[in-house]
Amino acid sequence: MSFEYELIKTCSQSGARLGKLHTPHGVIETPIFMPVGTQATVKSLTPEELKEVGSQIILSNTYHLYIRPGTEVIEAAGGLHKFMNWDGPILTDSGGYQVFSLGDLRQIREDGVTFRSHLDGSKHFISPENAVEIQNILGSDIIMAFDECTPYPADYDYSRKSMERTVRWAKRCKDAHKNTEKQALFGIVQGGMYEDLRKISAQETVKMDFPGYAIGGLSVGEPKDLMYKVLDWTVPELPPHKPRYLMGVGSIDALFEGVIKGIDMFDCVLQTRIARNGTAMTSGGKVVIKNAQYMKDFTPLDHECDCYTCRNYSRAYLRHLMKANEILGMRLLTYHNLHFTLNTMKNIRQAIQEDRLLDYKAEFFNKYGY
Amino acid sequence: MSFEYELIKTCSQSGARLGKLHTPHGVIETPIFMPVGTQATVKSLTPEELKEVGSQIILSNTYHLYIRPGTEVIEAAGGLHKFMNWDGPILTDSGGYQVFSLGDLRQIREDGVTFRSHLDGSKHFISPENAVEIQNILGSDIIMAFDECTPYPADYDYSRKSMERTVRWAKRCKDAHKNTEKQALFGIVQGGMYEDLRKISAQETVKMDFPGYAIGGLSVGEPKDLMYKVLDWTVPELPPHKPRYLMGVGSIDALFEGVIKGIDMFDCVLQTRIARNGTAMTSGGKVVIKNAQYMKDFTPLDHECDCYTCRNYSRAYLRHLMKANEILGMRLLTYHNLHFTLNTMKNIRQAIQEDRLLDYKAEFFNKYGY
Repeated sequence: MSFEYELIKTCSQSGARLGKLHTPHGVIETPIFMPVGTQATVKSLTPEELKEVGSQIILSNTYHLYIRPGTEVIEAAGGLHKFMNWDGPILTDSGGYQVFSLGDLRQIREDGVTFRSHLDGSKHFISPENAVEIQNILGSDIIMAFDECTPYPADYDYSRKSMERTVRWAKRCKDAHKNTEKQALFGIVQGGMYEDLRKISAQETVKMDFPGYAIGGLSVGEPKDLMYKVLDWTVPELPPHKPRYLMGVGSIDALFEGVIKGIDMFDCVLQTRIARNGTAMTSGGKVVIKNAQYMKDFTPLDHECDCYTCRNYSRAYLRHLMKANEILGMRLLTYHNLHFTLNTMKNIRQAIQEDRLLDYKAEFFNKYGY
Repeated sequence: MSFEYELIKTCSQSGARLGKLHTPHGVIETPIFMPVGTQATVKSLTPEELKEVGSQIILSNTYHLYIRPGTEVIEAAGGLHKFMNWDGPILTDSGGYQVFSLGDLRQIREDGVTFRSHLDGSKHFISPENAVEIQNILGSDIIMAFDECTPYPADYDYSRKSMERTVRWAKRCKDAHKNTEKQALFGIVQGGMYEDLRKISAQETVKMDFPGYAIGGLSVGEPKDLMYKVLDWTVPELPPHKPRYLMGVGSIDALFEGVIKGIDMFDCVLQTRIARNGTAMTSGGKVVIKNAQYMKDFTPLDHECDCYTCRNYSRAYLRHLMKANEILGMRLLTYHNLHFTLNTMKNIRQAIQEDRLLDYKAEFFNKYGY
């Protein structure tokens, strides 16, 4: 198939990987951060703007698209790429995470999950098979197996049973996948916060020979040290010639740590969500733009940044827009935060190329003030 | 000063005027529609996008800017153009319309109006003098006299007293205007729905020799026929070598009628407001995009339109965005509605040039289905 991971080099200073991921909609340089377009749109931005800020691949959420506009609308459009006018690679999740997040609205059985729509309360059933079928219709380049994102905290017994079911579901997803030429199905490692469960999960999932592997169930409330431990347990079990995706993780420090621990792909709503609330990520750390100190600050949001927002607008104007709840403010901060994150990932790739990622990390956080 | 109206020609078929308005920030071809940027932003769009859709001049609201971010912030920024990063011409209203709209929150006296902020209830006073002073600080190319927008309905006696005060206030505004080299102060004709009052108002205002004249107090709830009658009474009283601005009017039929009756400038929030609610103006009439009929309609919003929205997105996708309350949907519809309106104004100018505005109007509404 037209999907392949190419390991270009490993940073001699940090162990981080530089690679290329070939997909039907283009080549992705890894490590990469994927902006999240939950409802077939990365909130507030156009596809052209996503490219301007350096997005190579975006993520969209199967659950949300299934509920609205509905799979049949996207099928009639000729797939998600055409529907949303994005011609680059797309990764879709399986819907599992959202369905499990519904709490009382869902019921888990071995065959799948029955749930009620968060919009209208209508009843639905999602199984490993139809999670894959829906993603086959969406036509995303990378599709994800239907798993249970084990909650935190969870005891050993629950974590083991949940992980074992995720393994059984992964097999069913693989068997159900009908479009292996144009869509790569990734397996997902679960196992809660337990070393042996994580290793078993990784080993069993790797046995099924997926074209890529995700590490799920992290950034769900656990301390960051524990998340990094899980990566230390899990990553060595994953084959070097396949891409590794750390799901739902994207805080700036976790991006650095994840890359250093061998992760190639990340996604997170953090950058876009905090932007809409008025928080900017800058080379000098976070800027809460509504603060009174920026009222007459006519300098750019980030004096080291050359993005559209920083080239054209002052902190004072951005503060005014956010105080007045203006859409343009959310747009400009979203644009900047994604540019900042994707530019940092670009610098990370450059540092790996130059075998100096630990140095770059130290320089970065010396300014960022983490 | 650097402000001048040049009458290029009058349409032999309709009587409409084609002109050029020279301002310190560029030349405006008239007749023109001015998008409204109430809070120093035309909601959801960047300055570059405003230019793409054909905006030659935008309007901003003194009352809103005075309340937030405050005049001193815009003064510190070096004026409104720099603050919002718009280098084209700007017209600001005087704040009168908004202050009078506050109802119980304001008290009118001869010296000015005491009012409470709609945001925090703080008490303020605005007079003809400081309405001009604030606009001098904003630095807009065209500033407006402080008037009372006579409500509808209003009896003869109230309309007369209100109009007479507006005339007295116009004189005070003219005396207070400190920046006549770079900012043109327009007088405003009021007089309610009474022919003699409108004529008196126009005559008294014209006597003061302003560089331009606005017709206010229309589109305030009166039938359209009555609005057109007021134009018929008023416009002949205005000098041909000065621009004429019909305030707050911008429905597509009123743009045609206004131009035919000799108006050169229009502004309205309609285009941008209905866009954010999901209504598009198209060559085939209004499209309420959330309607179920567009669920699987993969054609452009307007098949005759070549704007960014119509070149790249389907009705089905726009419907999805609006149903999901996504910012991108509001952006794309706002962009289209302004493009549609400004493109129609461009066609109107072309039709005046060719002495065929009545023909163009008939062709337009034959399709638009008015």
